Order: sequence, then C-alpha cells, then structure tokens
Amino acid sequence: MSGPDSITAALLVIGDEILSGRTKDRNIGIVADFLAGRGIELNEVRVVPDDIAAIVAALDALRARHTYVFTTGGIGPTHDDVTADAVAAAFGVPLVEDPRAIALMLQRITSEHLNEARRRMARVPQGAALIENSVSAAPGFWIGNVIVMAGVPAIVEAMLAAVAPKLQTGQRTISRTVEVGDMPEGAFAGELAAEAARHRAVSIGSYPSYKDGRFANEIVVRGKDAGEVKAAVAAIEALIARLRAAGKDRYTIT
Amino acid sequence: MSGPDSITAALLVIGDEILSGRTKDRNIGIVADFLAGRGIELNEVRVVPDDIAAIVAALDALRARHTYVFTTGGIGPTHDDVTADAVAAAFGVPLVEDPRAIALMLQRITSEHLNEARRRMARVPQGAALIENSVSAAPGFWIGNVIVMAGVPAIVEAMLAAVAPKLQTGQRTISRTVEVGDMPEGAFAGELAAEAARHRAVSIGSYPSYKDGRFANEIVVRGKDAGEVKAAVAAIEALIARLRAAGKDRYTIT
Repeated sequence: MSGPDSITAALLVIGDEILSGRTKDRNIGIVADFLAGRGIELNEVRVVPDDIAAIVAALDALRARHTYVFTTGGIGPTHDDVTADAVAAAFGVPLVEDPRAIALMLQRITSEHLNEARRRMARVPQGAALIENSVSAAPGFWIGNVIVMAGVPAIVEAMLAAVAPKLQTGQRTISRTVEVGDMPEGAFAGELAAEAARHRAVSIGSYPSYKDGRFANEIVVRGKDAGEVKAAVAAIEALIARLRAAGKDRYTIT
Repeated sequence: MSGPDSITAALLVIGDEILSGRTKDRNIGIVADFLAGRGIELNEVRVVPDDIAAIVAALDALRARHTYVFTTGGIGPTHDDVTADAVAAAFGVPLVEDPRAIALMLQRITSEHLNEARRRMARVPQGAALIENSVSAAPGFWIGNVIVMAGVPAIVEAMLAAVAPKLQTGQRTISRTVEVGDMPEGAFAGELAAEAARHRAVSIGSYPSYKDGRFANEIVVRGKDAGEVKAAVAAIEALIARLRAAGKDRYTIT
C-alpha cells in the first residue's frame, strides 16, 4: 500500500546476541507498533552482527530507500559496541566526543566515574543531534535520516518517545480483524481472493495460529480509507457467515 | 568468528503482519537456537512484506552469500501467500503442482475438500524437494540452498526437525555467561576490552538488561575452543571479583 507520498522506514537491529539466539528480539515489535501508530510504514527489517562492515553495508542500502532508518543496539560503553563507529563511517564523517553528551552523563554520575569507557558513549558522528531518554544517562543520536537507539527495550521505548514529536507522520493505516475461528483457510481462501480483487483499496491478509493442537484463523483488513475498510470487512463477514451456514467449518485441516 | 570453513545461514522472514506490528515474530529466535545447536552461524536476518519483488531481491542477495537461506511465512492457501511464486521467480524455474504434495494433503483431507485454494499449497518450484511436517498437511520445500517453511512457529519447529538430518553441520560454538549483577557496564568496560584483546580466539559480548528500574549485566564468552573459552571466562570472573572488591558496584548508572 506504499504510495508516492508514503512515509516509510526500515529498522536495523544490531547485535550478535540476536543472531546467536541468546537474546530474543523484542525491538522489532516495539518499533513496528510505534511506527504504525504514526502512519509511518515499516517496509523492511534487517538483523546484523556487531560488525562495522556489515552495519555500514546495511545502512547504505536502507538509508537510500526509506524516509527513516531506525537502529537498535551497540551504543554502550563496551568494546563490542561499534554502532557509532559504523554510522560515522557510513556518513563519511568523524566520530567525535560530544560535550552535550558528556554534560548529560554528568547529570547522573560524578566526574570521577566518567572514565574512558563511559566517554565512549559520548562519541557521536559529527553533526548528529542527541536523543535523550529517561532511563539511561547515555544518549542515542540522529544523523541524516538515521536514528540510532540503544538495544535495551525500555530504552528503545524512551528514545522513540523522545524523537516522536520530530518525525514526519503519514496517514494512519486502519486495521480491522475478522475472527474466523477454526474454519480452515482452505475453506475460504478462494472466495477471499475474489473479495481481495473486488476491494483493491485495502490489503487483506489471512493469519493462522496454532495452539493446543488446533488452528484458528484471523482475516485482517488494512487500508487508509475508513469506508473502504468497512466495506471489505462487511463483505468478508458475510462470506464467512455464508460458508459457516454451508457447513464449511466442519473439518479442521487447513 | 566466521572462518573460511564456516557453515553460515541467513533467515528471511516474510510477512506484512510482522512489519505492521500485528504479529510479534518468534521465528527468528526459534531458527537462531536451532542453527546454534548445529554449529551453523546465523549471520543475517531480513524481514520483508508479502511482495514478490521484495522477496526475490532479498533471496538473491542472501542465497549468494550463505550456505543456507531459511524462509518463514507465505506458503498457505490464501491470495497473500506469494512465497512459492517468488522463490520460483528467483530461481528462474516454473512453479508446478507437485503430485507428491497432493498425495500428502490427501492423507489428511478427502478429495472433495481438495479445492483450488488448497491445490495452491501443492505448487512448488520445479526441482524442489518437499519438507513434510507433523502439524500441517501442506509441505514446505527446499530448492538449491533455500529452505522454505511456513510462518506458524509450531510448523517451523516441525519443518526444522524434518530438515535437520540433511543439513551440513559445523563445529558448535560454546557459549558461557558470567553474571555481573548490577555492577554497571561503564565500571568494567575498559578492563573487559583489555581481556577481549588478550583472548582473540573468543568473542566477548556485554549485555545489559533493565527490569523494575534496575540494570543487570551479563558478559557472554563465545568460541569454538573449550580451553580458550574457559580461560577467558576465568579471566573475566577474576576481573569482576577484583572490581567488586574495589567497590565498583556501588553505583547503578551504566
């Protein structure tokens, strides 16, 4: 549903710990929900390791294609935090210690604790704006169309709240769900495709889930126009009611 | 830690519902854990919408670079399931109805229920092998180095179990965690970097988490050589004990 006027975004999740399975990512869902609420279309996500070359390659591919690129992870004080280095390299600017970031950190710690490792967290690409947050002393930063955030989900949420007023917003996509229950996808798929062809102003998705040995299906209608969404939902509800009356929910294989 | 002999993989998660925030992905973690257990290095993940051009572009980029590319999502019977079409397009082969897939489905449903929509699930790129699973009648498939699975996590797990015996395996990475508690990263980051420089045969990551207003840190040592991992863990444990004795855990800002 991306149109020429769409505000689009990509998310780059940075961290060996996601790829090794050690940490189960939650930031994709957090960023997806945040963007959906502002009418910004999340079109692509990538997960890469804590590796400067891999981060630069992904940033270069994504920032050319989207209004915004959000990143999570790799901006702490330890040696494996290389995101700031990679963003500076991608933009071809020096990585510099930012006195505003130092000042923010000194609001939380005394100068005797401002060691070299913590000063690493004040390094930002030259020209970047800082992103404060209520959870941690160390800021994220924003350069060009790239918004660089921490990896800890609570800090991601705080940084998203901090940048929200400065983001362009688009028309929100309206999403409505039709609960199908255990009628199998295969029983309604053909006629649902026909409804999708009749309602081209919306996108229609069918999503099975599986729990305790049983499938359940939901049909989701998404679109920008409330009337078009409503019409498609009504047509699908009528379709499902018709199929149910015809006994199409009497077997459970999808 | 990828070496010339590494077995590597990428994962392509396909689905509008992940990008819209409607569904919170669980397959990244499932696939990451599965691959880690077999010594296959997951090096990259992408999430793309149910869009043939986007899927083909991602497949072409990933399959050239990795031993295996796993995909999840988009192989059901509904109109928004376009993964098989995209994989056939990426490989430049026709998408054909596979009589073996039809036979598998007829083990679960009677022929009167084998409608056109369900027949869609028997379409595979010419030359693909089928991936059976214990949960659903519809198979996944494997063509070239691309392994195509369903989106429902329970089916992903069943399909991974089905392909496991046929995958090349690498040397497993050993992972050990040192619990640091609430000593802030900034208090140990400098000396941890020095340990990382002394223990180049392993990778060392530091992972903060945040709960109920407090940070906790874990340091993870990963490597292929048990002796090298053990030595690095011992050095880090000694470092943390030394810092704790010196009172470095007396403040909580990271």
